[in-house]
Amino acid sequence: MIGYRHVALVGLGLIASSLSHAIRRSGAPVRITGHSRSAATRDEARRLGLGEILPTAAEAVDGADLVILCVPVGAMAVVADEIAPRLAPGATLSDVGSVKRAVIEAVAPRLAPGTLFVPAHPLAGTEHSGPGAGFAQLFDNRWCLLTPLPDSPPAAVEKLAAFWRALGARVDTMDPDHHDLVLAVTSHVPHLIAYTMVGVADHLSRVTAQEVIDYSAAGFRDFTRIAASDPTMWRDVFLSNREATLDILGRFTEELFVLQRAIRMGEGEALHAYFTRTRAIRRGIIEAGQDTAAPDFGRAALAQNTD
Amino acid sequence: MIGYRHVALVGLGLIASSLSHAIRRSGAPVRITGHSRSAATRDEARRLGLGEILPTAAEAVDGADLVILCVPVGAMAVVADEIAPRLAPGATLSDVGSVKRAVIEAVAPRLAPGTLFVPAHPLAGTEHSGPGAGFAQLFDNRWCLLTPLPDSPPAAVEKLAAFWRALGARVDTMDPDHHDLVLAVTSHVPHLIAYTMVGVADHLSRVTAQEVIDYSAAGFRDFTRIAASDPTMWRDVFLSNREATLDILGRFTEELFVLQRAIRMGEGEALHAYFTRTRAIRRGIIEAGQDTAAPDFGRAALAQNTD
Repeated sequence: MIGYRHVALVGLGLIASSLSHAIRRSGAPVRITGHSRSAATRDEARRLGLGEILPTAAEAVDGADLVILCVPVGAMAVVADEIAPRLAPGATLSDVGSVKRAVIEAVAPRLAPGTLFVPAHPLAGTEHSGPGAGFAQLFDNRWCLLTPLPDSPPAAVEKLAAFWRALGARVDTMDPDHHDLVLAVTSHVPHLIAYTMVGVADHLSRVTAQEVIDYSAAGFRDFTRIAASDPTMWRDVFLSNREATLDILGRFTEELFVLQRAIRMGEGEALHAYFTRTRAIRRGIIEAGQDTAAPDFGRAALAQNTD
Repeated sequence: MIGYRHVALVGLGLIASSLSHAIRRSGAPVRITGHSRSAATRDEARRLGLGEILPTAAEAVDGADLVILCVPVGAMAVVADEIAPRLAPGATLSDVGSVKRAVIEAVAPRLAPGTLFVPAHPLAGTEHSGPGAGFAQLFDNRWCLLTPLPDSPPAAVEKLAAFWRALGARVDTMDPDHHDLVLAVTSHVPHLIAYTMVGVADHLSRVTAQEVIDYSAAGFRDFTRIAASDPTMWRDVFLSNREATLDILGRFTEELFVLQRAIRMGEGEALHAYFTRTRAIRRGIIEAGQDTAAPDFGRAALAQNTD
């Protein structure tokens, strides 16, 4: 169950918009207020009926019993300064940032003693951004990771977990630093690699842009989808999860050099053994319900295209 | 229009199976014969009704006016030796290999003078393999690249192009070496990178396999789909397109080091500019009809799952 009577969304992008849709879908009688720094985004959010859109973050959080910061990680400190004095006593403050240690360091010191701060990260998103990209099903069957602080009251953590479950998500709790390492592996470095590969294709003068575009179906297309994600969000992710990203990147290049050498030396058996092992992880993901075995490579999306 | 009366498929995996289904879908009265080295695959192909399945490649190609080699690139030479003496006069020989220069070098010297050899590569596939993975729509709206030899008669090339169009594909012709470079960018290196990243996740003892699997929705999942592709096929691709793969890999690591340094030095503006440029390529792919703007990240496939 939702468990809150007034939810304030600070920042009105894809995640905040999807939160608004998913709260409405739950049927709970929740008042939703919201704010974005951008007047154009506020106007769009009003048109979309996402809630009562207010001109300042301080007004948006006034009286809310749950405040969720939905701004890029790099903007968390400024927003925390704006809202901290206006948080209602007993209100829970949370966020949806992709990095947790940096958000905690940016936000926690700015809060009044006794503020119930429970950082969170829903592992959900698409390659689109902005309030128009949100939809109620975004969190269905997706994980939301809570990274409570040592002094977070268990009741506040459990109440927030129930909120996310009511929106369709599965919930787990995790140490913030471990979260940042796990996400470096499952999200941050894969995004950086995809951005890099798309950049290489863009620079290569011997292959035309049209060739890259036309013949993308052979594997590259999935990279371009990942590399179309919001630039501001991802800049902040890499800058604020620097250590774990560089750690995993180091392991990645080390491993890539091993495979590169195997190709150069013509070591077919080593390559075959490597490519066979990676299939097992794929099977695990399908069994865990985080994807299906249906052949995709973009085909399912094509079949559904109704534009 | 199909244009041939008897098509022989040597090798009975995903592509050959899809060829059989797509030929049947066209309604043309074509005799289809086939062979696989594996008795189990031959039995499965018979059960699936893919055509007349024969115990040797030589018998399968007997009397065919189009023979398509659908075996891994590394097996092309052996198969060419088996079938060359049995090719009917005037028959067209083609293939579906992901690399073209190596296939030409393996096959052409084994053919009788005057054999109509027109190498081809349909840019279509899924992460599944084997005859059971084939389906009639695989080539719809996908490119098939023909890489004719200097002595390929234009009429034979045009006839093969019409065949692929009748199966739903778009057709282009290209120099074999340029094909191998373009595919290194759009397919081979992206696959190697995906395999590498999945391997890194598999090795990392501080992050459990269950965490990688559960939290894969944040970007990593698309990599695992790519890295679940057929190990034998991909081993052969990398070994037989070694130079272009190593060339593009070198550019990739160079570029990755530039981004890695920008992260280490905290150069936010450079990162933001880079991530903004890569969005344009994505838009081009959508406009070229090789994907849709529908938000995906696996969600469309989930919605369609009927298992």
